[in-house]
Amino acid sequence: MTSEEIFDGHIGGKLSVETTTSLDNQRALSIAYTPGVAQVSRAIAEDDSLARRFTWTDRLVAVVSDGTAVLGLGDIGPRASLPVMEGKAALFKSFAGLDAIPIVLDTQDPDEIVETLVRMRMSFGAVNLEDISAPRCFEIERRVVEALDCPVMHDDQHGTAIVVLAALTAAARAVRRDLTGLRVVISGAGAAGVACANILLAVGVRDLTVLDSRGIISADRTDLTASKADLAARTNAVGRTGGVADALDGADVYLGVSTGTVPEEIVATMAPEAIIFALSNPDPEVHPDVAHKYAAVVATGRSDFPNQINNVLAFPGVFRGALDVGATEITENMKVAAAHALVDLVGDDLAPGHIVPSALDPRVAPAVAQAVAAAAVSDGVATRAAEDPAVGSVRKGGAAG
Amino acid sequence: MTSEEIFDGHIGGKLSVETTTSLDNQRALSIAYTPGVAQVSRAIAEDDSLARRFTWTDRLVAVVSDGTAVLGLGDIGPRASLPVMEGKAALFKSFAGLDAIPIVLDTQDPDEIVETLVRMRMSFGAVNLEDISAPRCFEIERRVVEALDCPVMHDDQHGTAIVVLAALTAAARAVRRDLTGLRVVISGAGAAGVACANILLAVGVRDLTVLDSRGIISADRTDLTASKADLAARTNAVGRTGGVADALDGADVYLGVSTGTVPEEIVATMAPEAIIFALSNPDPEVHPDVAHKYAAVVATGRSDFPNQINNVLAFPGVFRGALDVGATEITENMKVAAAHALVDLVGDDLAPGHIVPSALDPRVAPAVAQAVAAAAVSDGVATRAAEDPAVGSVRKGGAAG
Repeated sequence: MTSEEIFDGHIGGKLSVETTTSLDNQRALSIAYTPGVAQVSRAIAEDDSLARRFTWTDRLVAVVSDGTAVLGLGDIGPRASLPVMEGKAALFKSFAGLDAIPIVLDTQDPDEIVETLVRMRMSFGAVNLEDISAPRCFEIERRVVEALDCPVMHDDQHGTAIVVLAALTAAARAVRRDLTGLRVVISGAGAAGVACANILLAVGVRDLTVLDSRGIISADRTDLTASKADLAARTNAVGRTGGVADALDGADVYLGVSTGTVPEEIVATMAPEAIIFALSNPDPEVHPDVAHKYAAVVATGRSDFPNQINNVLAFPGVFRGALDVGATEITENMKVAAAHALVDLVGDDLAPGHIVPSALDPRVAPAVAQAVAAAAVSDGVATRAAEDPAVGSVRKGGAAG
Repeated sequence: MTSEEIFDGHIGGKLSVETTTSLDNQRALSIAYTPGVAQVSRAIAEDDSLARRFTWTDRLVAVVSDGTAVLGLGDIGPRASLPVMEGKAALFKSFAGLDAIPIVLDTQDPDEIVETLVRMRMSFGAVNLEDISAPRCFEIERRVVEALDCPVMHDDQHGTAIVVLAALTAAARAVRRDLTGLRVVISGAGAAGVACANILLAVGVRDLTVLDSRGIISADRTDLTASKADLAARTNAVGRTGGVADALDGADVYLGVSTGTVPEEIVATMAPEAIIFALSNPDPEVHPDVAHKYAAVVATGRSDFPNQINNVLAFPGVFRGALDVGATEITENMKVAAAHALVDLVGDDLAPGHIVPSALDPRVAPAVAQAVAAAAVSDGVATRAAEDPAVGSVRKGGAAG
């Protein structure tokens, strides 16, 4: 893959807006635009709920970033983040049949970001927050979730957490261990690390230690941000202190969502039949060749090794399922349901080298969507049934790999 | 055209976002998304100007409304305005090959509207303000134009003004009169009325009288808003006072951009070979059958009579031309150039019953775009040549009728 091929693939961007209605004769114009459209606008003015039937917003995801934590590149600004946001929007369409538009904001102020999305609310049906730096991302997501009556998810947090939960559930099965009894170490307390910790706590993992760049997060540290102090209170019950060597000694699971590398001699101290998820891209914290010497199951974020932990396994189906039932939010149960749907898809093919479906498996997004929709219904956040024919008839063909 | 046909035509909305790149295999994913996209983002971070080449923003128009003056329906709110904004976006694509997305804002505060667009600036390449009520629309447009370094136009003002200037220029020719010597009466001092007055003054029309709902706008009135006081200072040099009967007595041109009707006995007092543009929709201020008894040239906003004054003749080509040369604004000369391009297209087919091209004439948008681009270059607001092959090669097929 040469630079030239890459740049060629991005010329003109990766999206276009197309019309789903004909406008090539006077009669069509009169229906789609004036005078016909006035009847439709008047009907929505009288009954807000008709907007979902007669506009595109019901299947439209705003992919929103401030460009502060773009891929591994950091704070490169909103303009430079656009190719990533366009790619994300393209994935929504290709994998889940959802329309998505990139909205990049030239402000890093949480108040202004929340306020802007509140003002724009009626323009879209859901918000995928993307590449917003920690710890700002936690406050921003919490406040946008509170302010908007629609599905909102910071994918760098929860997309990763969903796929990690799926992969770890399957990995535990592969080594015939109970997930909740595993001793888990998470390296990285940014967006992904915090969300992974939260979802693992939610499903009952009891021995969880999180590291940031200064070492193990513990209650006795005085240098913790609010989100890390919160983590300290809910993890590391045994009160470990020190660095990665202290954390990994005897641990069952290493989950790397940071940068940097773990020396082989430390990896060697993990428990037998260890599980190593080294998700840093493009350079895993532990190279798979090294990891396999000590671990029973190894996963990375890369497509050129088995067991790729890729957010695209989660977010298209999560948003599709949430929008299909008009969910007013994305609950923790919906996220866990998405993870379980991924595990179910692996099913009998489960093996140490096959703990998650392929990113290109066309069954993934529909299965995740169905599970998420069902969880939304049972959590009471759905506003309609998934089978509503008025919506189904206009969807663009469903998910495809 | 039944209600059922109209509502059926709007089910699911009228837009979709499509991907212009393949995402169905691992290699394609690696180019369009991670890890490939990182190279593109890094390049834009180092050189802002590359965004136009490697994102869709260079051909993307935000169609922005607060829903305060939607068609003839008034302040029906942002949600109910969505079908109109989607229709507008669809017209941008069908007529000029531009991508467009509806952004409806849940605020009527000019400060907040301007601020929101400033924050979103990098998400799009141009702003079409739409259906924002007067007099707020004047301040909002002025401030958005000042704040953003891209083409911005309130179409209800300038789209109408451009087509009216074209039609009036052609109508004057049809009756062998000099445009600037006509005695013109504009009924309506809202968005369209003010913009029509401005463009006619800009091309040298000397005797111009504007009416609002209380009568002739003159310097001695004490009930004028800022925009009307400004009009009073620049029009009605002879100091007419009174109502529509006083204004129309002996006038050459009646331009109706209001609501209400003009009684036949008043129409009868106009000068011989009068020109009547009765643009109120769906009910023209003067019915064409009545107008033809007294006028040599008659135009309406309706598609079922000859001489339809339709904004779609202007805005697709205006924005296309402006974006083709990376214009930093839309100048008065660019608007006048658009009008002249429309007159040129009528050419030798000029007749009292044919003063503007058909809205469906596929030559319109390219001709307008070319004229607007040339005017942008001569006004010094273009940032590149229209023939830039890097841009041309990725355009989606150009304008089509």
